[in-house]
Amino acid sequence: MISVQEALSIILDQSRSFGTTTVSINEATGRVLAEDIHADRNYPPFHRAAMDGFALRSIDFLEKGIRTYEIIEELFAGGTSTLKPHEGQSLRIMTGSATPIEYDAIIRIEDCTVNGTQVTFHIDTLKKGQNIARQGEDAKAGELIMAKDTRLFAPEVAALAVTGRATVLVHQQPKVAVISTGDEVISVGKEVKPHQIRDSNSYALASFLHNYGLSITYRTLVPDNKDLLSKAVQDVLEYDIVIFSGGVSMGEADFVPGILVDCGVQNLFHKVKLKPGKPLWFGKLPSGGVVFGLPGNPMSCQVCYKIFIEPFLRQCLGLGKALTLQLPLVVNKKKNVKLDQYFPCVLEGGGIKPVVINGSGDITSTLHSHGLAVHPLEVDDLVKGDTVDFIFW
Amino acid sequence: MISVQEALSIILDQSRSFGTTTVSINEATGRVLAEDIHADRNYPPFHRAAMDGFALRSIDFLEKGIRTYEIIEELFAGGTSTLKPHEGQSLRIMTGSATPIEYDAIIRIEDCTVNGTQVTFHIDTLKKGQNIARQGEDAKAGELIMAKDTRLFAPEVAALAVTGRATVLVHQQPKVAVISTGDEVISVGKEVKPHQIRDSNSYALASFLHNYGLSITYRTLVPDNKDLLSKAVQDVLEYDIVIFSGGVSMGEADFVPGILVDCGVQNLFHKVKLKPGKPLWFGKLPSGGVVFGLPGNPMSCQVCYKIFIEPFLRQCLGLGKALTLQLPLVVNKKKNVKLDQYFPCVLEGGGIKPVVINGSGDITSTLHSHGLAVHPLEVDDLVKGDTVDFIFW
Repeated sequence: MISVQEALSIILDQSRSFGTTTVSINEATGRVLAEDIHADRNYPPFHRAAMDGFALRSIDFLEKGIRTYEIIEELFAGGTSTLKPHEGQSLRIMTGSATPIEYDAIIRIEDCTVNGTQVTFHIDTLKKGQNIARQGEDAKAGELIMAKDTRLFAPEVAALAVTGRATVLVHQQPKVAVISTGDEVISVGKEVKPHQIRDSNSYALASFLHNYGLSITYRTLVPDNKDLLSKAVQDVLEYDIVIFSGGVSMGEADFVPGILVDCGVQNLFHKVKLKPGKPLWFGKLPSGGVVFGLPGNPMSCQVCYKIFIEPFLRQCLGLGKALTLQLPLVVNKKKNVKLDQYFPCVLEGGGIKPVVINGSGDITSTLHSHGLAVHPLEVDDLVKGDTVDFIFW
Repeated sequence: MISVQEALSIILDQSRSFGTTTVSINEATGRVLAEDIHADRNYPPFHRAAMDGFALRSIDFLEKGIRTYEIIEELFAGGTSTLKPHEGQSLRIMTGSATPIEYDAIIRIEDCTVNGTQVTFHIDTLKKGQNIARQGEDAKAGELIMAKDTRLFAPEVAALAVTGRATVLVHQQPKVAVISTGDEVISVGKEVKPHQIRDSNSYALASFLHNYGLSITYRTLVPDNKDLLSKAVQDVLEYDIVIFSGGVSMGEADFVPGILVDCGVQNLFHKVKLKPGKPLWFGKLPSGGVVFGLPGNPMSCQVCYKIFIEPFLRQCLGLGKALTLQLPLVVNKKKNVKLDQYFPCVLEGGGIKPVVINGSGDITSTLHSHGLAVHPLEVDDLVKGDTVDFIFW
C-alpha cells in the first residue's frame, strides 16, 4: 500500500491543461486566468487628486511663503482645467480629478479657509507632491498586473474591470463525470427502503466544484451490475475527470476496479495508507483523462476530494497548492492505525479542535467543521500544542 | 468621528430578516438554512456493515471458541438476508449492507480463509459489535442535525441529500442595488478618456456577494448630477441594501449624502475612524432598508464591504461573525494616523505579511492577498510577532 504523498505524486503526474475559454467578468469569480493581464495604461492614469482641497505650486508656498491664494478655477473629477496658474494662484480640486501638471501639491479642505475668491492655508509645512497620486505610481502602462494562472476573487475581478476587460480568457472547465454506484443507493427524491441509503456524494462533489466555478457535466447512479457499470464507463471515456463513488473496496460486488481495467483504464494505484479513504482507486483513461474510484462513505468521499481531487484540479488549472495553515491542537488526540488520518475540525481558541465522530460512514461527521487537519501516519499520539497541517473545506 | 466598532454597532442594529425562499439543493451552496434539518430516520438507518467480511454471532467465537464457520448466505449492500444463523454459521457480508440483527460482529475479509462453503478466522480476539455501525449511532430519527441559520457548504449539502431533501428553505436573498457615481467613471466596455476611470467597484461587490450565492438586483452608473442621483435613489427606495460608490467625501460634487437625506433617508453616521474608508456614510431607508455610501477608491470599497457590509449581510442571514484568525506579524509595521487601519496581507511563514501599497486608490493593492488584517487605532507601531486580527477575503 502506498502513502498519501506517493498517491498524490502519481495523481499530479497525470495533470494536464483543460484548454482555455473566454468568459464575461460577471461569471469569472472562482475561475483561473489563462492569460497575463497587463495595465492597459498608467495607473493612476493621471496625477490623481487624493483629497478634496486646493492644488497649488509648492514653490509659492515653500519659497515665496505665500499662505493666501487666489482661486482661479474649480476642477471636478471627470473634468479638465483650462487656466494656467501664476504665482499665488490655486485650483479648487476634488478627489479623483486629474491634477494639471502645473500644480505639484494639494492641501486638504480641512486645512483651508475660503473667503470669496481667496483661500488661506492653515498649515506650516508642505511636501512637494503631497496628496497627489502620481501617474503610473501604481502600475506603468504595459506592466504585468496579474499573471496567467491567477485565481479570480473580488480584488482580481475589480482589477479586470479597471483595465477594461469585459471578458477574460480563463482555464476551461474540465468535463467532469460523477458516477455513484451501489445497489443500496437511491437517488434523492425517490422512496428509500429501510436497507437503502440516498446518494449524497455527487452533491458534495458538485458543491466542492462550485467553488471553482465548475460543474459536473455528467452525473448518474448505477447499480452493482457489471454490464451497466461497463456501459457507464463507455459513456465517459472522453472525459477529463471521472469520479466513481463506491464499489472499490474488498467486497464481492466491488466491480469498479475490474470493470475499469476491462474497459482499458490503466490502474495506477489501488489503496492508500489513509483514513478515511483507504480503498481509493486511481487510473488513467486511454484519452488521457483520469479516473478516481472513491469509497462510498460520505466522509471518505469528502476527504478524498480535498486531498487528491482538488490538488489535481488545481494543478491542471495552473494553481499551486491550496492554502495550508500550521496550527496547534487545543486537545490531545490518539490514533491507533498506521495511516495518515484526516479529521474534520473547527478553528477555536487560536488552534484546532477535532470534531467528535463515530466513523467515516457518519453523515454528521463533517458538518459545521471549518476543514480538515492531518494526524500523520508515523505519530501515534498528538498532544495539546502540537502543530498540525490544516486545510479549509 | 465615530470608531469602527461604533459604526459597526449602528449598522448591525439595522439588521433584519430578508424572508425565506425554497431552492434546489443543486443551488444551495453558500446559502443559509432558514429551517432546522432533522434526521428523517435513524443514521445509520440499519446496523451497517463497516467492512467487507463475515458476520457471526460473537457468542460462538468468544464462548464456544469456534474458529471455522459454515457460510450460509451472502449479503450485498442493498440486499436482505433470508436465513437465520445457528451455532457455527456465518454470513458473508459486504460493506454498507444492513447486518441482520442475529449477527453482532463482523470479521474483515483480510483475516479470513475461505474454503468452499467454510470460512476460518485468523484472529485471537473479537469485540462484540466490531465493524458494525449501530443503527442510530450517528443520529437518531428526528434528531436535529443542522440548525436554522447554518451556512451550506459541501458537507452540509451532502447531509441534505442524505436526508432526502431535494429542496430546502433558505434565507431569501436581499434586494441589493449598487449605484456607482462620478462624472469621471465610465462603464467597462466603453471608451475611456485620459482623465476618466472605469467602474470597478460594482464588479468587486458582485464578486463578493457571489460567495453567498447572492447577486446584485439593480446596478447602474450615475454622473455627479443632483437630478439623476435623486432619480436613482427613487428607484431603490424599496431595496434591502443600497450601496453607493463614490460621492461621499468633502468635495463640492459629493452630492450623495445630501441627496439621500433629501429623499428621506435617515443619516445614521458619516465618517469613521478608519483607513481606508474614512468617508463612509450610512443611513436607513423609510422602508427599513439600509444605504451604504462607500468611498469610490477600489481598496476603500473592498475594505468597507468586508468590515461593514458583509457583517451586516451575515447578521441579516442569521449568521455569526465571519471567521477571524489571530496571527503574528512576520515584519514590523508603522502607522502614522489615529485610525483603525485595515491592510491587505498574505499568510506566510505561519503569520501575516502586509502587501506593499501606495494608497487606497491603487488598483493593484489588494491583488493576490489572502485577506485583511487590522492595525488598531491606538497602536502606532506594531512589531514582528505582535498578534493581529485577520479575515479572509
